[in-house]
Amino acid sequence: MAVQTVASSSTSTVDLGPAVALSCRECGHRVPLGPVFACEECFGPLEAAYDFSGYDTEELRRRIESGPASIWRYAPLLPVPADVADKPNLNPGWTNLVKADNLARELGVTGELFVKDDSGNPTHSFKDRVVAQALEAARAFGFTTLSCSSTGNLAGAVGAAAARAGFRSCVFIPHDLEEGKVVMAAVYGGELVGIEGNYDDVNRFCSELIGDPAGEGWGFVNVNLRPYYAEGSKTLAYEICEQLGWRLPDQLVIPIASGSQLTKIDKGLKELIELGLVEDRPYKIFGAQAAGCSPVSTAFKAGHDVVRPQKPNTIAKSLAIGNPADGPYVLDIARRTGGAVEDVTDEEVVDAIKLLARTEGVFAETAGGVTVGVTRKLLKEGLLDPAKTTVVLNTGDGLKTLDAVAGTGLSATIRPTLDSFREAGLA
Amino acid sequence: MAVQTVASSSTSTVDLGPAVALSCRECGHRVPLGPVFACEECFGPLEAAYDFSGYDTEELRRRIESGPASIWRYAPLLPVPADVADKPNLNPGWTNLVKADNLARELGVTGELFVKDDSGNPTHSFKDRVVAQALEAARAFGFTTLSCSSTGNLAGAVGAAAARAGFRSCVFIPHDLEEGKVVMAAVYGGELVGIEGNYDDVNRFCSELIGDPAGEGWGFVNVNLRPYYAEGSKTLAYEICEQLGWRLPDQLVIPIASGSQLTKIDKGLKELIELGLVEDRPYKIFGAQAAGCSPVSTAFKAGHDVVRPQKPNTIAKSLAIGNPADGPYVLDIARRTGGAVEDVTDEEVVDAIKLLARTEGVFAETAGGVTVGVTRKLLKEGLLDPAKTTVVLNTGDGLKTLDAVAGTGLSATIRPTLDSFREAGLA
Repeated sequence: MAVQTVASSSTSTVDLGPAVALSCRECGHRVPLGPVFACEECFGPLEAAYDFSGYDTEELRRRIESGPASIWRYAPLLPVPADVADKPNLNPGWTNLVKADNLARELGVTGELFVKDDSGNPTHSFKDRVVAQALEAARAFGFTTLSCSSTGNLAGAVGAAAARAGFRSCVFIPHDLEEGKVVMAAVYGGELVGIEGNYDDVNRFCSELIGDPAGEGWGFVNVNLRPYYAEGSKTLAYEICEQLGWRLPDQLVIPIASGSQLTKIDKGLKELIELGLVEDRPYKIFGAQAAGCSPVSTAFKAGHDVVRPQKPNTIAKSLAIGNPADGPYVLDIARRTGGAVEDVTDEEVVDAIKLLARTEGVFAETAGGVTVGVTRKLLKEGLLDPAKTTVVLNTGDGLKTLDAVAGTGLSATIRPTLDSFREAGLA
Repeated sequence: MAVQTVASSSTSTVDLGPAVALSCRECGHRVPLGPVFACEECFGPLEAAYDFSGYDTEELRRRIESGPASIWRYAPLLPVPADVADKPNLNPGWTNLVKADNLARELGVTGELFVKDDSGNPTHSFKDRVVAQALEAARAFGFTTLSCSSTGNLAGAVGAAAARAGFRSCVFIPHDLEEGKVVMAAVYGGELVGIEGNYDDVNRFCSELIGDPAGEGWGFVNVNLRPYYAEGSKTLAYEICEQLGWRLPDQLVIPIASGSQLTKIDKGLKELIELGLVEDRPYKIFGAQAAGCSPVSTAFKAGHDVVRPQKPNTIAKSLAIGNPADGPYVLDIARRTGGAVEDVTDEEVVDAIKLLARTEGVFAETAGGVTVGVTRKLLKEGLLDPAKTTVVLNTGDGLKTLDAVAGTGLSATIRPTLDSFREAGLA
């Protein structure tokens, strides 16, 4: 993958709020804010670094609480300008934290169980959170085209955000994607380009394009804008704690695709502790994968520090990244916090989707079936404490993966008469 | 349809907040709160009547503004107990009011244009608002089964709400519904019963069931709980005005199915004026139908007071009610406020869905295509004033009517090379 560096003079004046630099997660080397994603010293991943030093805790809390019902209530903690809420964007976030008492009963949880339901976002997945950050970075850097490679949720999130913000969008997908997914991405009217090849070919092509003059002015949300994009996942941590009354949950169950979301939720929780917005006490982070794409779970169970790539084969397509970039960081967080990483079969995923729908009225994407299924498995294994406060993430909407529950059908077919109704035993 | 009456003694103690009785919209006859929907004197429709006399305007405004980010911030104005937000329900509402500057430009609107986007509700249609009211009435009357007849959005909304609230649900649909729609409703695990017959047969059967001992303990959200159910649409009026800074819009464009939503939005606006929460000034209400099911639009244009039933034939299935119960009331409101009722072809509906998606990143159900399409037509006809503040409703999600935009596809297919990219003219 091409590595880009920028001269500090060209970007030192961008206003991305409290973000003051990019910092290498491996060696700590700092560079000015710019559309770069890999450290020029050690090729490690760059992430946003902030100056929160001027914040008074109670003033910050009041500012957040009086902010909009979207991720922008946390603008003081994100790489975005202070007036971000006034710019055209999809205003994602502030999704329901569902108190899941019925599910708790079924699972034998005696403590509080919550589902953070991100299907309520504008394009119905958590991707709206991260794309919204990338959009602000794209504005700051003067990009005019928003782009990404995708096989699903991200394509729609980028297409929708670009449409609303007045950006051109150009999204690259494998040319043989299912028609439904193509429609969901194409409807926003941006360029949707099919690449003759598989998802790896698409990614390789995007990396080439970033290094080429043809890609000038293009912001790839999850490549050259990745350090900003990834920060959007912190808002899940912020919202969960605020919705719990400024309190850390004891346990979180988070899906793993690249692993970025899990690491950023951990980062967000640590920030809230450092800022004094929540009490500093231990929390455990659990990662969830599908058995058909479980490189991190496999490494966790084997006690490895490195993650061996796998070839994905699961219905949980939005988690099907066989070589997760943040895998090692996820292993570290799970071990450091006393959590774990577990996986469930596709059959367990489908069962869990139905369980969540039937108990709480939340229809989750396959990724939500993975986290609920893993929660059940971790409870059986004694790794999750049933007496503690637990938050399980649902990151997408069941309407996007209808195929997973195809065949869920009528409980009876009757003639339109009371006799037929009684015969069917429905009375 | 069977008409039921109840003895006042059995229901006079139910707590539905400020709702004190049911009142006939035709003759004004009052009956106690109960699971009844037609006047015992004149067979007119019953609706909730309130006692708002104790409210102080500024105190009420503060109470609403400090309430939850859901319809329950308006609990003081709805037929629900004061502690409704603490009971298990889907917490719908407080959806985005999208400032649609891009769409305004395309349509030649010089004033403010907004889209009230109800696809953000838990099951992604406005039906969650009305079902949530019916659920509270069902609780108050001691019902244990939540039911309805449906061909789509309502089935999912009832199934989800019942699951979360711990009610049994039993939803009746025509037996030959498309598989996708069946899955969306069946996933919540309630009874989903196919009726051998068309939608009229399903409705007829439900009316029979209500009058039969087999239907005892059953709350049909849109039949015997209709007077409560329908009030949920008032929350659209409340939210729009609060989101505009406690201000009435000049013009609203609202879809018409039964017409209930439009009449209740008008009721909600009038309540806000009476309560002093908004300034009393004129507003115009416009109704939107699909040409393939346009009984109200046809009557409006012909100057008739009565609505002649039609046999629906349109892709806007959620609006396809050929004999709309509230049609005459809609005609009255459109004429009294200086609005109009208009209709658009299925082709215009599809165009409008794409227009809204491409300009604002909002992917609407066919019903949203109807309102946006009608807005465009009314502007061309000079019936909508382009210089005024206009709110257009989108009542559902495009993911539920993907077929309408099927064929929206790739803009190009290329090999994974820069040369191929350049040849396609994408640079």
